[in-house]
Amino acid sequence: MVKVAIVGSGFIGRAWAISFARAGHDVRMWDQSPAATAGAHDYIAGVLGDLAANDLLRGQAIDAVLGRIAVVAELGEALADAVHIQEENTPENLEVKREVFSQIDAMAAPQAVIASSTSALLPSKFTDHLQGRHRCLVVHPINPPYLIPAAEVVPAPWTSSETVERTRALLVAAGHAPLVMKHELDGFIMNRLQGALLEEVFRLVADGYASVEDVDIGIRDGLALRWSFMGPFETIDLNAPGGVRDYVERYQSIYSNIFPQMLRRVDWAGEVIETVEADRRKRLPREELGERQVWRDRRLMALAAHKKKSDQEFGR
Amino acid sequence: MVKVAIVGSGFIGRAWAISFARAGHDVRMWDQSPAATAGAHDYIAGVLGDLAANDLLRGQAIDAVLGRIAVVAELGEALADAVHIQEENTPENLEVKREVFSQIDAMAAPQAVIASSTSALLPSKFTDHLQGRHRCLVVHPINPPYLIPAAEVVPAPWTSSETVERTRALLVAAGHAPLVMKHELDGFIMNRLQGALLEEVFRLVADGYASVEDVDIGIRDGLALRWSFMGPFETIDLNAPGGVRDYVERYQSIYSNIFPQMLRRVDWAGEVIETVEADRRKRLPREELGERQVWRDRRLMALAAHKKKSDQEFGR
Repeated sequence: MVKVAIVGSGFIGRAWAISFARAGHDVRMWDQSPAATAGAHDYIAGVLGDLAANDLLRGQAIDAVLGRIAVVAELGEALADAVHIQEENTPENLEVKREVFSQIDAMAAPQAVIASSTSALLPSKFTDHLQGRHRCLVVHPINPPYLIPAAEVVPAPWTSSETVERTRALLVAAGHAPLVMKHELDGFIMNRLQGALLEEVFRLVADGYASVEDVDIGIRDGLALRWSFMGPFETIDLNAPGGVRDYVERYQSIYSNIFPQMLRRVDWAGEVIETVEADRRKRLPREELGERQVWRDRRLMALAAHKKKSDQEFGR
Repeated sequence: MVKVAIVGSGFIGRAWAISFARAGHDVRMWDQSPAATAGAHDYIAGVLGDLAANDLLRGQAIDAVLGRIAVVAELGEALADAVHIQEENTPENLEVKREVFSQIDAMAAPQAVIASSTSALLPSKFTDHLQGRHRCLVVHPINPPYLIPAAEVVPAPWTSSETVERTRALLVAAGHAPLVMKHELDGFIMNRLQGALLEEVFRLVADGYASVEDVDIGIRDGLALRWSFMGPFETIDLNAPGGVRDYVERYQSIYSNIFPQMLRRVDWAGEVIETVEADRRKRLPREELGERQVWRDRRLMALAAHKKKSDQEFGR
């Protein structure tokens, strides 16, 4: 087991700490604001309790995992001997990110990999000036990473293949499912896929064809059931007798006929947001958002437990 | 409980028969090709056994449900007294569909609703000539409908609101989650959403940013976990402290910056299909497609059972 440094102790930093400590690594967490780390220990202990209840701690005791996470007062203490450094998604500001990376690159051990959790900034934009730029990249999670395995690994043009491979291996060993991009691209993969879907759902509601709830039904009680254990390519591969090529031959024309209607973008903040907001607030009053987020995480946890069981019973 | 007629005994017709019979309805199934109905009874009995094993028969015995399904030799016998007629997705040929609907409309009881399972034809295109066109519409399932609740209800411009409402109520009572479109539109809702996602995944692979498997990971181990119990609107509603309006204010620019890159369509049957096919066949040889479809349906069944349990434990 190796040492992992977490730079930042907010929601993402804490979540990464849980994920790496569960995998057996010693985690040192540091935050530039000492006040921010105050509740970290109790928060993490609470999450570990929920994970244990769902048998998602790899059979380990809560205290064993918790004992591997230390909040430290100095950045240098966090970085010393770390082989992987995971920088939390600090404000998505390029100047801040460049400065943070300068600092980490100067202090980290020569063999350490330095990963940013950014969701929006391309790694080439904040690592070009660094001596150790070959060991820098993006590892972008979906929240929370201790429940959602997918994590995007995004190299800059100068990131070494060794850096990418070590990162991939570390993530796999921690139970993650890394998506390794071949080149960096705006939105990486997952935000592009989410964006493609969101563009169409906002268009359907703005044009008056469907309600907000109908769209959500179509995904949560429809398409996403298969997607949640197969992904879109395997789904269509199994949806025609001869596999994906057969599917494309049979059905591409349905989609290519629709495509011209997808060239127009609806401003999500325009009139349509009134419809969306009204519908959502009718179903979920604003003061219940926090409670519903707790509900979401409990359902995610139960789903993770279900998938683990199904993987064992039926195979992946 | 009412009488439901199923016109067509293929995969979709059989699946609808299971769904309606499980809900307590008497189902009469007819097929223009008597040979097609031969294996229907055994096939349905097999599926009912799997459903019972997953506690998805509403506590009923297999024989009780099976006893409500009869294959009949004459169309008139199937239609007599039926209050809902579900036409199977026969070849997606407009002339055939118009002729089938003429025949059904002429023979069905005046109060019967006539629904097509078509995924590709707009209801206005094959019902305009009918005396009973006000009672015709599309009810498009995702396969198999006894496991995937979502079903699209698509009215033609002349479909009466009573027809839409009766259909919605029938589906809800049968455990379905109907999406009721306000107006017909190519691809309805679900194929449009699937298409939006597929356009982007084919583009990412064609442009060399990601592998086929990486895209599937991003959905099945990432985005689709939340989508599988919330849908995309609720997901973003819970992804910003102030709800969906806050989300749009914070993050729309990420997506609008990407949008111009989505205006170019990749021909799925072009060079990219060689990459996709090669990757899929490496993971799943062609001769194992059938076996994997069985795996998919077992996983879907386990997921349906899990969702039912989670709905009860945590609420929807």
